[in-house]
Amino acid sequence: MGTGEDLNGAQALMRTLVDSGVTTCFSNPGTSEMHFVAALDSAPEMRAVLALFEGVATGAADGYARMAGKPAATLLHLGPGLGNGLANLHNARKGQSPVVNIVGDHATYHRQYNAPLQSDIETVAANVSPWVRTSASTAELCTDAAEAVAAASGPPGQVATLILPADVSWTEGGTPAPPKEPTNAAAPDSRVVDAVAAALRSGEPTMFLLGGTATLEAPLILAGRLREATGARLLAQTFPTRIARGAGLPAVGRLPYLAEAAAGALAEVRHLVLVDAPHPASFFAYPDLPSDLVSEGCTVHHLAPPDADAVAALTSVVDAIEAPETYTAQEASRPERPSGDLTAESVSQAIGALLPKNAIVSDEANTAGFGLPQMTVGAPRHDWLTLTGGAIGQGLPVAVGAAVACPDRKVLALQADGSALYTIQALWTMAREELDVVTVIFNNRSYAILNMELQRVGADGSGPKALSQLDLSRPDLDFVSIAQGFGVPAVRPTTAEEFTTELERALAEPGPHLIEAVL
Amino acid sequence: MGTGEDLNGAQALMRTLVDSGVTTCFSNPGTSEMHFVAALDSAPEMRAVLALFEGVATGAADGYARMAGKPAATLLHLGPGLGNGLANLHNARKGQSPVVNIVGDHATYHRQYNAPLQSDIETVAANVSPWVRTSASTAELCTDAAEAVAAASGPPGQVATLILPADVSWTEGGTPAPPKEPTNAAAPDSRVVDAVAAALRSGEPTMFLLGGTATLEAPLILAGRLREATGARLLAQTFPTRIARGAGLPAVGRLPYLAEAAAGALAEVRHLVLVDAPHPASFFAYPDLPSDLVSEGCTVHHLAPPDADAVAALTSVVDAIEAPETYTAQEASRPERPSGDLTAESVSQAIGALLPKNAIVSDEANTAGFGLPQMTVGAPRHDWLTLTGGAIGQGLPVAVGAAVACPDRKVLALQADGSALYTIQALWTMAREELDVVTVIFNNRSYAILNMELQRVGADGSGPKALSQLDLSRPDLDFVSIAQGFGVPAVRPTTAEEFTTELERALAEPGPHLIEAVL
Repeated sequence: MGTGEDLNGAQALMRTLVDSGVTTCFSNPGTSEMHFVAALDSAPEMRAVLALFEGVATGAADGYARMAGKPAATLLHLGPGLGNGLANLHNARKGQSPVVNIVGDHATYHRQYNAPLQSDIETVAANVSPWVRTSASTAELCTDAAEAVAAASGPPGQVATLILPADVSWTEGGTPAPPKEPTNAAAPDSRVVDAVAAALRSGEPTMFLLGGTATLEAPLILAGRLREATGARLLAQTFPTRIARGAGLPAVGRLPYLAEAAAGALAEVRHLVLVDAPHPASFFAYPDLPSDLVSEGCTVHHLAPPDADAVAALTSVVDAIEAPETYTAQEASRPERPSGDLTAESVSQAIGALLPKNAIVSDEANTAGFGLPQMTVGAPRHDWLTLTGGAIGQGLPVAVGAAVACPDRKVLALQADGSALYTIQALWTMAREELDVVTVIFNNRSYAILNMELQRVGADGSGPKALSQLDLSRPDLDFVSIAQGFGVPAVRPTTAEEFTTELERALAEPGPHLIEAVL
Repeated sequence: MGTGEDLNGAQALMRTLVDSGVTTCFSNPGTSEMHFVAALDSAPEMRAVLALFEGVATGAADGYARMAGKPAATLLHLGPGLGNGLANLHNARKGQSPVVNIVGDHATYHRQYNAPLQSDIETVAANVSPWVRTSASTAELCTDAAEAVAAASGPPGQVATLILPADVSWTEGGTPAPPKEPTNAAAPDSRVVDAVAAALRSGEPTMFLLGGTATLEAPLILAGRLREATGARLLAQTFPTRIARGAGLPAVGRLPYLAEAAAGALAEVRHLVLVDAPHPASFFAYPDLPSDLVSEGCTVHHLAPPDADAVAALTSVVDAIEAPETYTAQEASRPERPSGDLTAESVSQAIGALLPKNAIVSDEANTAGFGLPQMTVGAPRHDWLTLTGGAIGQGLPVAVGAAVACPDRKVLALQADGSALYTIQALWTMAREELDVVTVIFNNRSYAILNMELQRVGADGSGPKALSQLDLSRPDLDFVSIAQGFGVPAVRPTTAEEFTTELERALAEPGPHLIEAVL
């Protein structure tokens, strides 16, 4: 790659992305993206991480963004490639993760022929991506790309999709564009700040519901000071994008998943303060249960909408009530190493006993993971990443992205069996990139959550065909074989002691490992 | 399930589907689909086939439709489930396969809360599905469903998507609807028939390009009679939905994939007769190659558009030129059993030597499969299913669906390594349903087609990062372990002789097998 005047579109795009801070690309390319692929070597700053399936690439970009605090790019092959990546882009959208999709398309003049891979990419992208643009020419490509990065970066973070026709990519005359100025967060609304301060002073039951960027360390500490000063309650939203936890931080629970329990948690609240969190609603609707979890007579305060700065908003409240610096920090405490049978509880206990300092947990353990929060609450400081949009198959890809973003930290992927199988190809990328990810499969050989939900929705589902739809035991899935097939060493301990020993070993060694716990 | 008055929406829907001829459902359900799942046991005629990933379910519905000639249903979980199934629905759309998607959604009153799984399902569905409807009430559900089945059935076959809100599913008062009358195919256009007959009589070079439904046995024989009577050439489109082949049938080649070769095949043609085939265009655009493959001075005759009856149209031409009954039938001939090194060629030769009578071949061998058509042309009568829409990850799911549709026939899934990994979860469904599918993995440990395309698009892609994006050898994928992990017995022969022995054994035994050929 030489001087500006002899760059093609793809090379200029690569330079623009890097200059805008996008230095990682999670890719699954095809023919229409070959010039982008060729241009990778023109930008030494760009790391390209190959995925075997687009859902791995998009989920990894989400995990990367959660930990790096900036977007990665994805590289996807036309409409079907975007489709394969859509579920984890849905999760990214719901979690306000910044992601820049680069979706290759046919050459502009080729679209009229309705070739086999022709489809309406923009409409599908708009489902997950508020910013969508098909770059019309090589001359416009790089300003489009700089805008895409700025749009993704937010606030709030979002998915931005740049559709890249093959001829726009291959034509000479590309000119790199400078980064676009970031958008400033909205300032705190003083009327809301005053109302929240008044609520806190009133002594009426007040709860802060923390979501989005408000579950990182700094806003959590501000919220902890408010709790300390006023007795207000704190809850994180049910599925935080990233929540800082562990000894030394304010301990904050999460709004329960089950609608009955969630409504109970909010029942006595008279002032609900939303800090980058959506209005609480039940995850699913159920016959005879309300969808809206906020009880009558509760005032909802929108302290920090998604485009606001949660830290600034919480700081304003802290200042308004002159909250002291102090807060109750979670004490350091771990459970004992477990013994006896291998169960969801003993596996969770082992994880609590061994979770390394600064670990990143990608949690898609679903029903099997109900005990994890309590077992790990007093572990050393760590970050917990959850299933933000409910589209299962997120845990392993998010672990990939987190590990790429934070090569000095250990990543634990805590993964239910059913969910793992949507994007199991992530294991190969862990092996290829030698990522420090320890995957624990909670294998209960069923869609356990559906066994629960079948009852809860009031369906009479006791017939053999219905039950068969929830059962993953015919045949049993062997995750050790699957992992080994993808190049990841794997073991299947059979007791709590063996599991703990294997987990300790896996955490001590570099590179990926998988431990299958048959429950 | 009792009498009509006590049915809920899901139970009435199930009855309507069965009455309309939809007796198979490829499913990957979630909470919002639990009443549909519970209703499965109310309809003994409905077979429910569970998939671990939605792309398996949608691809299986496509494969089923190709072989059964009628739609199956899919059952998908909200927008992300549809997203995961989108790539294979794209293939179904391009192949004009009838598919009825049932996509669960939140209860109608729950959508306003923007819960985590809320998204715009209709817009995504419209990408692949000309018929999309969100059923508004239990009362309307069954007429909606009957319309969906009719829309899917065509002609042409298409994807129809019925979005099923949870409360529409669970509310009592469902009333099954009778099947909707099928749409008649458009009659042949006599002016086009006359023009084609005149072209054939003129002696000018004429070619029939056969696609869609025109590559089944009956239209192929009609086309063979026209070839016999007039010297017209016959070609099938590059990627037929289903083409009948083998000894006793007219042998018809396929339009080449590579644009140069395809243009060459059409270069001398003066009359191109499209029979349920699209206007031929190159698969991708390339710098300095035309996208339109039809040469100047060639007249294109649209004998049978997609909504027409290809058999009636060809019959009209046969009648117009009074073509005799005779046609040249492919002679029975098989290659010898191969010996020596295991190569793409020797694997293809072994398949030609052993392909069972009435076999169904699901072909996603891609570059490794270039030799397959020639090696199998004289095998006993069989059907060949190809990658209609270019969205890889179709081969294994289509094999699942074909095997469900045709339990008395052997299915061979001929599968490239890279493509296999998009929907590898299909192996588990093969094991669970004990399907007679023999999967052969052509494992060249690369995205070989991209190595070829990187050169062909003129990209200077010799850098290490670019080449790494096309390489699947770090680490090597072990398909034997992966298959065993999903419950499918698997072997990895190392010579042509061993491969042939293993293929013979696998074809002789019931149930699924996988043979990995490392090339």
